[in-house]
Amino acid sequence: MAQKSPALENVTIFSGSAHKKLAKQMAAYLGIELSPISIKKFSNDNIEIQLGESVRRKDVYIVQPLVPPTSDHLMELLVMLDIARMSGAKSIHAVIPHYSYGRSDKKDAPRISITARLVADMLVTAGAQHIIAMTMHSPQVHGFFSIPAEHLTAHSVFVKHYRQQDLRDTVVVSPDIGNAKRASKLANALEVPLAIGQKQRISDDNVNIGSVLGEVQDKRIIIFDDEIATGGTIVELAQRLYSAGAREVSVACTHGLFLKNAKKRLDAIDQITEIVTTNTVPVRKKKRPNNLVTLEVGHIFGEVIRRTIEGESVGELFEFWPDS
Amino acid sequence: MAQKSPALENVTIFSGSAHKKLAKQMAAYLGIELSPISIKKFSNDNIEIQLGESVRRKDVYIVQPLVPPTSDHLMELLVMLDIARMSGAKSIHAVIPHYSYGRSDKKDAPRISITARLVADMLVTAGAQHIIAMTMHSPQVHGFFSIPAEHLTAHSVFVKHYRQQDLRDTVVVSPDIGNAKRASKLANALEVPLAIGQKQRISDDNVNIGSVLGEVQDKRIIIFDDEIATGGTIVELAQRLYSAGAREVSVACTHGLFLKNAKKRLDAIDQITEIVTTNTVPVRKKKRPNNLVTLEVGHIFGEVIRRTIEGESVGELFEFWPDS
Amino acid sequence: MAQKSPALENVTIFSGSAHKKLAKQMAAYLGIELSPISIKKFSNDNIEIQLGESVRRKDVYIVQPLVPPTSDHLMELLVMLDIARMSGAKSIHAVIPHYSYGRSDKKDAPRISITARLVADMLVTAGAQHIIAMTMHSPQVHGFFSIPAEHLTAHSVFVKHYRQQDLRDTVVVSPDIGNAKRASKLANALEVPLAIGQKQRISDDNVNIGSVLGEVQDKRIIIFDDEIATGGTIVELAQRLYSAGAREVSVACTHGLFLKNAKKRLDAIDQITEIVTTNTVPVRKKKRPNNLVTLEVGHIFGEVIRRTIEGESVGELFEFWPDS
Amino acid sequence: MAQKSPALENVTIFSGSAHKKLAKQMAAYLGIELSPISIKKFSNDNIEIQLGESVRRKDVYIVQPLVPPTSDHLMELLVMLDIARMSGAKSIHAVIPHYSYGRSDKKDAPRISITARLVADMLVTAGAQHIIAMTMHSPQVHGFFSIPAEHLTAHSVFVKHYRQQDLRDTVVVSPDIGNAKRASKLANALEVPLAIGQKQRISDDNVNIGSVLGEVQDKRIIIFDDEIATGGTIVELAQRLYSAGAREVSVACTHGLFLKNAKKRLDAIDQITEIVTTNTVPVRKKKRPNNLVTLEVGHIFGEVIRRTIEGESVGELFEFWPDS
Amino acid sequence: MAQKSPALENVTIFSGSAHKKLAKQMAAYLGIELSPISIKKFSNDNIEIQLGESVRRKDVYIVQPLVPPTSDHLMELLVMLDIARMSGAKSIHAVIPHYSYGRSDKKDAPRISITARLVADMLVTAGAQHIIAMTMHSPQVHGFFSIPAEHLTAHSVFVKHYRQQDLRDTVVVSPDIGNAKRASKLANALEVPLAIGQKQRISDDNVNIGSVLGEVQDKRIIIFDDEIATGGTIVELAQRLYSAGAREVSVACTHGLFLKNAKKRLDAIDQITEIVTTNTVPVRKKKRPNNLVTLEVGHIFGEVIRRTIEGESVGELFEFWPDS
Amino acid sequence: MAQKSPALENVTIFSGSAHKKLAKQMAAYLGIELSPISIKKFSNDNIEIQLGESVRRKDVYIVQPLVPPTSDHLMELLVMLDIARMSGAKSIHAVIPHYSYGRSDKKDAPRISITARLVADMLVTAGAQHIIAMTMHSPQVHGFFSIPAEHLTAHSVFVKHYRQQDLRDTVVVSPDIGNAKRASKLANALEVPLAIGQKQRISDDNVNIGSVLGEVQDKRIIIFDDEIATGGTIVELAQRLYSAGAREVSVACTHGLFLKNAKKRLDAIDQITEIVTTNTVPVRKKKRPNNLVTLEVGHIFGEVIRRTIEGESVGELFEFWPDS
Repeated sequence: MAQKSPALENVTIFSGSAHKKLAKQMAAYLGIELSPISIKKFSNDNIEIQLGESVRRKDVYIVQPLVPPTSDHLMELLVMLDIARMSGAKSIHAVIPHYSYGRSDKKDAPRISITARLVADMLVTAGAQHIIAMTMHSPQVHGFFSIPAEHLTAHSVFVKHYRQQDLRDTVVVSPDIGNAKRASKLANALEVPLAIGQKQRISDDNVNIGSVLGEVQDKRIIIFDDEIATGGTIVELAQRLYSAGAREVSVACTHGLFLKNAKKRLDAIDQITEIVTTNTVPVRKKKRPNNLVTLEVGHIFGEVIRRTIEGESVGELFEFWPDS
Repeated sequence: MAQKSPALENVTIFSGSAHKKLAKQMAAYLGIELSPISIKKFSNDNIEIQLGESVRRKDVYIVQPLVPPTSDHLMELLVMLDIARMSGAKSIHAVIPHYSYGRSDKKDAPRISITARLVADMLVTAGAQHIIAMTMHSPQVHGFFSIPAEHLTAHSVFVKHYRQQDLRDTVVVSPDIGNAKRASKLANALEVPLAIGQKQRISDDNVNIGSVLGEVQDKRIIIFDDEIATGGTIVELAQRLYSAGAREVSVACTHGLFLKNAKKRLDAIDQITEIVTTNTVPVRKKKRPNNLVTLEVGHIFGEVIRRTIEGESVGELFEFWPDS
Repeated sequence: MAQKSPALENVTIFSGSAHKKLAKQMAAYLGIELSPISIKKFSNDNIEIQLGESVRRKDVYIVQPLVPPTSDHLMELLVMLDIARMSGAKSIHAVIPHYSYGRSDKKDAPRISITARLVADMLVTAGAQHIIAMTMHSPQVHGFFSIPAEHLTAHSVFVKHYRQQDLRDTVVVSPDIGNAKRASKLANALEVPLAIGQKQRISDDNVNIGSVLGEVQDKRIIIFDDEIATGGTIVELAQRLYSAGAREVSVACTHGLFLKNAKKRLDAIDQITEIVTTNTVPVRKKKRPNNLVTLEVGHIFGEVIRRTIEGESVGELFEFWPDS
Repeated sequence: MAQKSPALENVTIFSGSAHKKLAKQMAAYLGIELSPISIKKFSNDNIEIQLGESVRRKDVYIVQPLVPPTSDHLMELLVMLDIARMSGAKSIHAVIPHYSYGRSDKKDAPRISITARLVADMLVTAGAQHIIAMTMHSPQVHGFFSIPAEHLTAHSVFVKHYRQQDLRDTVVVSPDIGNAKRASKLANALEVPLAIGQKQRISDDNVNIGSVLGEVQDKRIIIFDDEIATGGTIVELAQRLYSAGAREVSVACTHGLFLKNAKKRLDAIDQITEIVTTNTVPVRKKKRPNNLVTLEVGHIFGEVIRRTIEGESVGELFEFWPDS
Repeated sequence: MAQKSPALENVTIFSGSAHKKLAKQMAAYLGIELSPISIKKFSNDNIEIQLGESVRRKDVYIVQPLVPPTSDHLMELLVMLDIARMSGAKSIHAVIPHYSYGRSDKKDAPRISITARLVADMLVTAGAQHIIAMTMHSPQVHGFFSIPAEHLTAHSVFVKHYRQQDLRDTVVVSPDIGNAKRASKLANALEVPLAIGQKQRISDDNVNIGSVLGEVQDKRIIIFDDEIATGGTIVELAQRLYSAGAREVSVACTHGLFLKNAKKRLDAIDQITEIVTTNTVPVRKKKRPNNLVTLEVGHIFGEVIRRTIEGESVGELFEFWPDS
Repeated sequence: MAQKSPALENVTIFSGSAHKKLAKQMAAYLGIELSPISIKKFSNDNIEIQLGESVRRKDVYIVQPLVPPTSDHLMELLVMLDIARMSGAKSIHAVIPHYSYGRSDKKDAPRISITARLVADMLVTAGAQHIIAMTMHSPQVHGFFSIPAEHLTAHSVFVKHYRQQDLRDTVVVSPDIGNAKRASKLANALEVPLAIGQKQRISDDNVNIGSVLGEVQDKRIIIFDDEIATGGTIVELAQRLYSAGAREVSVACTHGLFLKNAKKRLDAIDQITEIVTTNTVPVRKKKRPNNLVTLEVGHIFGEVIRRTIEGESVGELFEFWPDS
């Protein structure tokens, strides 16, 4: 828990309905309580929200990861921002542990939307003046925001986790080129080699791993990705690595959603010894894979909030830091 | 169907997933086809949309009422607008037959959102340059838009419907003061008296009709409201009118949602002889009250689209026209 | 008078030329003086204003109701806001006791302006960051502002006034449906019934009261409206109520302008026992109806300014509060 | 009159109430009629305007010089722009023959407003997309607009007027340094010398001419200024020139307002042989000085409108053209 | 050359001083001439530009790659856009063959600028309504623009070039992970394997290639990158590949700048058999490496301009197209 | 040096590469150090900047005159502003001692840019919230900024300088009408007469002084201008004055650039006894004319920064103050 300072007196934290538990961790880190809020739906399915405490001249932090039902949670976030803005808040901060729309960050087909930019603009329209998010799909998503953003990483908790293991003959594998820079950074920190899969997406839930660049035979594998939704990519890659002679597989991802039959698919792969994720996304008990390990990141958000309040630099908590 | 003109050559109509049938009526009125579109969800619940046809330098009309699941449908609409904007459309028109958030048009509690304004601003952020909507909750919602808006009315189809009935001893009743102006306009057109209920909302789905101003005893009643969601207000009012000596009740509303147990509640009231609504909202068969009468309004939207394309005045199709 | 706090040290209040007396009441409530200002016209009829005191890093409140000559007073307000903005004020608050353009809040004819929205946007363009107004024409006007707004009510002073009277056999009458919600709230607070006139506007200054819903015979009447300009509606309604058997009439309105021959017309109606208004609008002595009672509301504005400065909630001073 | 072209079919011209006669000249030049408009005031002094003709997809020109009562005329202009914008006009052009606020173009005292910029921003907020004005106070006012602007000059009509006179021993005199560049341009065109007064403004209507740079003794003088309001500067300068030995004085100004006792003051100076102005400002008959000569400029506006419609260059009609 | 159509009549193309030759190719493709322009510097080093032809109601295309001196060329582009906007152009398109600031697309150190976003916003501020660029540093840079953008690729010309060669035992090598997706696409099209270097940047001009993932021994190499500035990365990688047993190296890059001593450094490496680039960047003769092959891309820009004018889809010319 | 106050604790000053020495003077006046900054160019000529100290919640002042290489210095300034904005600065102030683009303040030819406005808008886009500049080309440039601006003058240091001289038979001469107001103010302060040259610009670096209004024979001359670039105007005017019988010439200008062969040209004129300028522009030793006198203005900037921090009025340091 952070040292309580006078600047914290003016801070108010609200949580949307997506992940109250994580918001509480942040508040606890700061030594304060979540402020009360009422979130309902009108009989016609419209979102209906009332903040339970005055925000006038307050520094308001609103916590909401964009997890399913994603549209409802996004709409909640927008309405909360609007209320804070129109009720005279002094500053308004959107804390979005999982910015799922970061995935739509480029135009790789005609007449589609770079929704990561659209949502960024909508957050600003609604009143956000500052964004705090963790491991957005690519580092460039940062530049979609026209307001200050802190792009945090869970790198430190993953490094801490794996350093407790025997890393001889271990290789970090990125499922595809797009995520390879992050995987490379983990490999560097763990002082193990890197390998890269050449994923080709056949459909949203159906991928083909063309080949793997780098040595994997007789290796212990750490697959590292940013998001697991239904687990399709991981299952495909784990099998492919096994065929290529890999010994066993630890799966690590920042945002573990485990939707649809992800648990069943992942539990079925014997070579997967553990699935390591953070708590940016709430997962109901019965949806959790058997060997799930959840690393807590609430303190990282808590610390960055504390620093923005105190006017301290938050640089060293950022994503995509040059390796030292 | 409208006379086909050269200006129509440049028009493209897309429908979101909310109400394709109504969008088709509009297109048919104009003598064109809906343009193809793919609307899906990514495995992580993000909306994924691709327009199936070039919109470059086209006049693009996007049809989507805000009906349940409302957040998803709103998000679809925003993404479609964004695609049209970023793909070089010449003009972009959002056709929103039911703008459900119009209901959140004032701040009648502290720290709530005037969401009707927020959504208006989000539509503009996403790319809307023109709005076409029918019977928004209050006429002032028009002023929430910073772009041209056509606020249409189904008045004409209701008048046509009721003029076919015997209107002796008939009274139009507004459930509350807020909607009374619209009810008054219907009453004037039908040349019958008006009565007004004094609704007090106890909770979103639980209302109390304090008293009714105006004569209802021994009368045939036309209850006129803008939206029926779960039917709570109507049921309460119908019973109250019956206690006050009303003979029978025809219920009319522009936007008939019939959510949750609305059908069951309404079917249980014997005095309700018919429920008249328009097709701004799609209602699945098994959700429809037994005595539902649906009046089609696709041609009204079609005609207003035609006129905006041809550069003709649309004034006489508006809501809140002074009675002549 | 409010308790003087350190936050008040940083507050500066300027008054335009519309209603210096009311601005002084607000300043006095806060225990400060109005800041000096010079307001003139150049020889070519341009507005010429100079603030008489530095506003750099100050919380600046600018008081100006939009009363005749309305265009000049609006222009003064815009220029004052512009000066504050461009001279480095910390925060800029427009206090507009009577926002007369609130009346133009809907498009009830083709090719007219929703001027209430236009003026809201102009105020923001000029530099307003916060609006404080009383009883705007409809609660939705609140949503026309893209900045925080406090929509205050004089409800409490009217209730206090009428509770001193014998309210037996009294009915509150709203001249038309549009204002009926406010009248209903007053009726509820006074625990008397409500009646509603069905006003039809023939021209701006010529109205016809079609009928009155609710009991008025042998009643003492409180007509309650938001604005009296030339008194046309009141005179017509009072006569109509008298014909319908009403005993006597008390007229209440928040904004009493009493323009043109309003005094003469109102003085001529014997049944009007008193005309109760607030001091949001300055009325020259010779324009005041004989039986005018003016209720002061300066303290309500003073209190809301104090609370916004101190960061306290202002919710309970709002218009359109749910009745408790 | 211009050759009628197909592009003109789509043009609509409305005039505010400031100067219908000049607007008619422009329309006549284009071979079209002014479109009907209703301009009134509500009983509470609010501006009430209705355009009498559809503007949907039209190129709309709105003519209004900012002449007394200036605030009312400015407000009319803003409302007309707003209506055009919100009614779906294709393009919106504000034709402001006299942009009187151009005079407030610098901050020559603390805590005043550069109102020329504020008004420019307000016009854009209201919907203007293009400005056409004549001889604004300084050429830099052009840069206050964030939209295309045509800054026209009456130079050609003044040159034509004076070339018909005997210009031997004639000097063009600018009353002050600020206007000297324009006067210099006229002197160059007439091939006569220039002299410059050193005006010091004591108050808005009271100036002192410190000295005159350049030869004026035994000369025939053409005083050239941009605006005459009450005539104070001209009277002071004419007398001063007379004392310095000038023979006779012709006064020329683009915008002749002749407010208050201007006529009386000017008529009293015998040395003033003529007062030459344009018709950018309407002057009632009884306000006109005896020896007033009015040069018509409607055709210049007409021609620039024609060119902007036809997509032709309007460069050679501009103010501040380098002398050839 | 494209078929000349009526829509082309309205098109005007201007070139800044960066690369007139390429602009001419585009114009020639469309069958028109570049419009005249004067670009100079004032004596105080300010940029001074005059367009030599009216742009009123024209579709204006302004061609300027951001090549050294980059700040001057960027400023020229901004000024040209501003002139087009303020002179009444109908539409304004910035054609930026090399958007060099695309490289600053993420925040990989504290307190640096995502300048790719800043420059995008500046282009919009200056008047750009549409962007046409080729191979920006990452596909996400597309999302930095708040206006429609066409992100083109030279993929087709590289494929055509290499298909004429013997591709047995050939490997495409990406110098680093960041560019690997593009290299992968080229490898796929050529049906050869991919290898990826693990570049670590020590300073801007000093890189270390940690290791190479994939087989390179006894292979013919095609190094594929997006930009060569001083050639540091290429030289380091070529040497490293040679040590690893590669046979010979063909270097390919979209944007070949060849600054400082690039020619000398590259000419010194014998294994480099050819350096293939496009003509997005002008290179003076004496700066060109000996074995430089320049592929022309003017027709790609010409075709995309033609299609945007004609309202045709440009999808198939895009970057980051899914492999078919 | 200013009295150190608590408000200064929160201030951070960065200097771009244009004029570090002047920035240091400002910091020294405030009793603080310049904050560290790294300014480089990437190998592709892109600007690369990193602020060396956290700016979160700081009042950030960024000092950069727009001097050659002007485009680079402007781009540096924009990037620094962007970093401050995106790193959470509390307030951002651009201190631009010489705003060279102020010269492009009007449209005196077709299809040119009012670049002074464009640059103002770009500064705001990049993040500037407040501008501090000295002697911009005309007072109207102030109005090009949509944010608060302090337009400072070096008037006081020039007056102090000249009051130490024998001013008998002295005349202040403005080279042209445009600058005459400033020269007039200096003349008034020194209680000497004014004369005005009638400059005609043949090309950017070639002017012709048509004639001089006012007495110069046998006079000692003070030529007063705002900027000397290559000295063309001064040389031409000095020679012309000499021919007209002037005795000797002191040249004064606020912004002394002395570019190209200015030193040589000015040194060649014997009658020029001194050239007085301020240190808003850095001049390398070998570029300085022999008789250059540099007056320091760092304290003026320091004082205005101190006052804006302390919330004091800065009015009396402004340009274009009415003479007292």
